[in-house]
Amino acid sequence: MTLSPGATIGILGAGQLGRMLAMAAARLGLKTHVLAPESDGPAFDVAGSRTIAAYSDEAALARFAESVDVVTYEFENVPLACAEFLSERRPLRPNARALALMQDRLPEKNFLRDIGLETAPYMPVEDAGALARAVAALGRPAILKTRRFGYDGKGQAQVRDGSNLGALYRALGDEPKILEGFVRFEREVSAIAARGLTGEFAAFDLCENEHERHILARTQVPAAVARATELEARALARQVVDALDYVGVLAVEMFVVKSQGGERLVVNEIAPRVHNSGHWTIDGAETSQFEQHIRAIAGWPLGPTTRRGTIEMRNLIGQEANRWREILADPTLHLHLYGKIENRPGRKMGHTTRILPAGENERASPAPDA
Amino acid sequence: MTLSPGATIGILGAGQLGRMLAMAAARLGLKTHVLAPESDGPAFDVAGSRTIAAYSDEAALARFAESVDVVTYEFENVPLACAEFLSERRPLRPNARALALMQDRLPEKNFLRDIGLETAPYMPVEDAGALARAVAALGRPAILKTRRFGYDGKGQAQVRDGSNLGALYRALGDEPKILEGFVRFEREVSAIAARGLTGEFAAFDLCENEHERHILARTQVPAAVARATELEARALARQVVDALDYVGVLAVEMFVVKSQGGERLVVNEIAPRVHNSGHWTIDGAETSQFEQHIRAIAGWPLGPTTRRGTIEMRNLIGQEANRWREILADPTLHLHLYGKIENRPGRKMGHTTRILPAGENERASPAPDA
Repeated sequence: MTLSPGATIGILGAGQLGRMLAMAAARLGLKTHVLAPESDGPAFDVAGSRTIAAYSDEAALARFAESVDVVTYEFENVPLACAEFLSERRPLRPNARALALMQDRLPEKNFLRDIGLETAPYMPVEDAGALARAVAALGRPAILKTRRFGYDGKGQAQVRDGSNLGALYRALGDEPKILEGFVRFEREVSAIAARGLTGEFAAFDLCENEHERHILARTQVPAAVARATELEARALARQVVDALDYVGVLAVEMFVVKSQGGERLVVNEIAPRVHNSGHWTIDGAETSQFEQHIRAIAGWPLGPTTRRGTIEMRNLIGQEANRWREILADPTLHLHLYGKIENRPGRKMGHTTRILPAGENERASPAPDA
Repeated sequence: MTLSPGATIGILGAGQLGRMLAMAAARLGLKTHVLAPESDGPAFDVAGSRTIAAYSDEAALARFAESVDVVTYEFENVPLACAEFLSERRPLRPNARALALMQDRLPEKNFLRDIGLETAPYMPVEDAGALARAVAALGRPAILKTRRFGYDGKGQAQVRDGSNLGALYRALGDEPKILEGFVRFEREVSAIAARGLTGEFAAFDLCENEHERHILARTQVPAAVARATELEARALARQVVDALDYVGVLAVEMFVVKSQGGERLVVNEIAPRVHNSGHWTIDGAETSQFEQHIRAIAGWPLGPTTRRGTIEMRNLIGQEANRWREILADPTLHLHLYGKIENRPGRKMGHTTRILPAGENERASPAPDA
């Protein structure tokens, strides 16, 4: 089912990703209806229709489904029951299978292994005893993670020499966990790619990411990797979306690891949505990741991913957004603010993009063609 | 008075210009409240708050003023009483003087003459007798126009050899008119410029415009004019905004006329708002005219107007918008649709932008620096 202009896209979640999706939809003449439980979500400011309701409110979900032509989501923790309820009524893009898989680190990693991709070594951890066995198997340091609801470093703890395993296990609460072996990486990168309704594929140039306190601080494009690595990342993203019959934009976060004088990619996690490390595409690519996602879920042709130069995107976290006036006065920066009322430490308030003409200050060999 | 992120911009008018202004405001973390009488205005889809009310509804205007920090407008036919009512309560940018002037072709032309700019020869026409005298003075062909509410060729009639002046006069209705002498021009151009709260000035590169049946069909940038003409257009726009203590984006439509082997600019009309011929700036300039207007009325620094290449913008009028699928499949085009439900002949439904790398297919000498 493909949409025509004037159709309505239902978006689950009212954060900044939903906000930027809604604006991309509007640019293409599509209407949006955003559903989320919190009343002050940034996406509500730019949505044609708004429903404030719990994801478990079936009456609200039924009305929401009635009012839209296709449903998408801006975050991977949409309750599966909600996704399934909606997908019985309207096309859900990306599909519920992708969502289910990426909500839980264990099936996600199993899936990646099954399609032949390398991940960090991992073991499920059901109790403190299993943790001891897993640490014995994977060695230290290692990272204990809750299988669900982790983001920006939440729900994680490092297992170091001398760590008290029982205390660590209890600190993360009474829920299923996974232990991941430590990966000694050169850099962190992400591939933002899209698959259309007819299987068409397009990827943006590989993003190189720097985190501070587990939160993305900075993305640079192109990534300082070998051309073969860039091509491998692209191929790997295509494998993931093809295997899932995926429709929409997907992000693959990876580690670049030194390997016999060359580089190897180890997949860290995948996200069934537009991604913070792709925000540079609004100013820096011919099609933004948001427009690309809208095109894909509308059943429309994907847009060109051509990059406009050498890019640096920086998140504005918490009080960093107070620098808005200085940023506005800098002609080399594009400012994006998400309209969040409350400023909390660690909260993503906006981002900036700097674009240098291609070639100037280029950090690596040219990226392959889109 | 300057705004901070989170402040609310009140926009009078809910057309596509208001829509694109609201999206630019949202990108910068500003909220918008759109007021217009029609319920299906395209701007309502992307505005945080909406009031459907007549511009004469003072109770609604008072509530609107209470809810916003600054007021702007997307069209020059805002009733003056409405503008003045609001400007007593909140900063109105651009100011009511600019609005009053540009609502009426006679004071508008008088103003342009007063600051030393060339316009077509013109005479006010109060009755059919005055029309005969004006035609005798200005010659044929000439154009009879209503002084107010004209756009896209509405409220105009050509006075040709043999035209029945009485019938022509009556055809345009019982309202004040103006006769304009015919200008034999080489091309039509427009300058889109902005003035900030502190008098700061920035202009986009000159736009060359082609009309079909009095409606803008196509804009190309750079315009095929001499560098001196480009500089003159810029200086002339600055004269206009400085004379009016103007804050915001303004458009100056001009004719390029052959003059002693060179070129001369004759001002056709000015518009106190963002302008159709500036739509290319969304994709083709580092700052869009919409963001520039928001920056100006927020009291923020103006953004860089650097052009990204050689540009062609085409309006999608009426049924032309039905080509959306073909346009989406063309990687050289950016598609913008305004979300209008009803498609009527002559109605602006959207536009496309094509950007070629600078230099490629460049039509004129390089434009001057911004």
